[in-house]
Amino acid sequence: MPPFLSGRFWRAVFTRTRGERLWAGHRRTSGGPGCRWDALAGADVLRAEPDRFGGISVPLERFRALDRLDAASFQKVLQGAVFDENTRKILVVQDRNKLKNMWKFPGGLSEPGEDIGDTAVREVFEETGIKSEFRSLLSIRQQHTNPGAFGKSDMYIICRLKPYSFTINFCQRECLRCEWMDLHDLVKTENTTPITSRVARLLLYGYREGFDKIDFTVEELPAVYTGLFYKLYHKELPENYRTMIGMD
Amino acid sequence: MPPFLSGRFWRAVFTRTRGERLWAGHRRTSGGPGCRWDALAGADVLRAEPDRFGGISVPLERFRALDRLDAASFQKVLQGAVFDENTRKILVVQDRNKLKNMWKFPGGLSEPGEDIGDTAVREVFEETGIKSEFRSLLSIRQQHTNPGAFGKSDMYIICRLKPYSFTINFCQRECLRCEWMDLHDLVKTENTTPITSRVARLLLYGYREGFDKIDFTVEELPAVYTGLFYKLYHKELPENYRTMIGMD
Repeated sequence: MPPFLSGRFWRAVFTRTRGERLWAGHRRTSGGPGCRWDALAGADVLRAEPDRFGGISVPLERFRALDRLDAASFQKVLQGAVFDENTRKILVVQDRNKLKNMWKFPGGLSEPGEDIGDTAVREVFEETGIKSEFRSLLSIRQQHTNPGAFGKSDMYIICRLKPYSFTINFCQRECLRCEWMDLHDLVKTENTTPITSRVARLLLYGYREGFDKIDFTVEELPAVYTGLFYKLYHKELPENYRTMIGMD
Repeated sequence: MPPFLSGRFWRAVFTRTRGERLWAGHRRTSGGPGCRWDALAGADVLRAEPDRFGGISVPLERFRALDRLDAASFQKVLQGAVFDENTRKILVVQDRNKLKNMWKFPGGLSEPGEDIGDTAVREVFEETGIKSEFRSLLSIRQQHTNPGAFGKSDMYIICRLKPYSFTINFCQRECLRCEWMDLHDLVKTENTTPITSRVARLLLYGYREGFDKIDFTVEELPAVYTGLFYKLYHKELPENYRTMIGMD
């Protein structure tokens, strides 16, 4: 008999409960000084409550929201291109587990509700021990059917960060190597991914001819009605275009 | 007794089945020539099967994947700024249901596995009847706790599109009005959202001083190992920086 369901709740009686959890949803967060593994809060149990039929009901609101979300969602990976203009050095890592010997920028998955720049800064710190601040958004990659993206499209965002600490203390579990490399060497090396190489060239272009040539900078703007604010990223707009004074 | 669960399956016996569905997860897709309402495939029933205890089991694999996805996901909304360089006109709509009298760019939710530019082109066509092609990525908005984003952060991406049809046939259910507006008028109007106004100014800047000043253009690059390709968006890189020939 197909179990078609009705009502606001999915009504189910659990015939066996073993007192152990179904699964402990551990999600990898990158390491560094903290180098931690977090349990995903709230993901390891399903909320249930006694119902008026003497059974147990599990509210499906959350699944419903996830189903709707499912169709339009994707995961977001941030990478931080930490570039020191004073020394022309860029922070790069080699993965321990994959892409061995390939230099790339440190980074990792965004937390829920986390700003783009905040993710990049946090992941860089956790993975390498380097403190930095957000400068701009440099590049976006969209890839479908990525094996690591839970069957979703992924969004890979590369930010330009400015370092304000310089002593590397990288996560040994995650990285094989981590170093400050001359930007020109990164542009020339073959031991890197196509995207890293491309962004290295982009950074060199910005370094030589002005970062305004490559940056999407950020600004906070008010949302209509809701009273909320959002972050808007685009090419820097000259002041006269912002105000439109004398520009008829 | 708290209903902790065990094993690969969430084992549940349904004490009542009414033969009706729990919910029909209709998701709004924008209209236009098609102007359709789609049921979200597979979202309206939960798959279940008889288990060896004489009850019904519901595989939780999918929920597990969604839980993992949950932490890193967000929804993606695309808007298309369809600008006709020959006439300096931009395609704008007014929502029927919200933001009344506020001019904005047409757009909507991305489908799973859909490219950024493809979503913008599709949504513009469905909402307004205008055919266009992708030119560039202009701006990205990140907003948290948006009421329409199922409790997730949302990612709002605005693309520059070039029209190749010009006769408006807009979705009456979705839009109150739709027209080709002089870009300068959109810059000046107060009946618009802050983000639309900002992007209108950005477009005016690009129109007057070159779209290379504002565009993130796209290129397809090969992924390492997987044999897949991905789309990479960033400021156009001059040819000498791509090849690095004679640039030591």
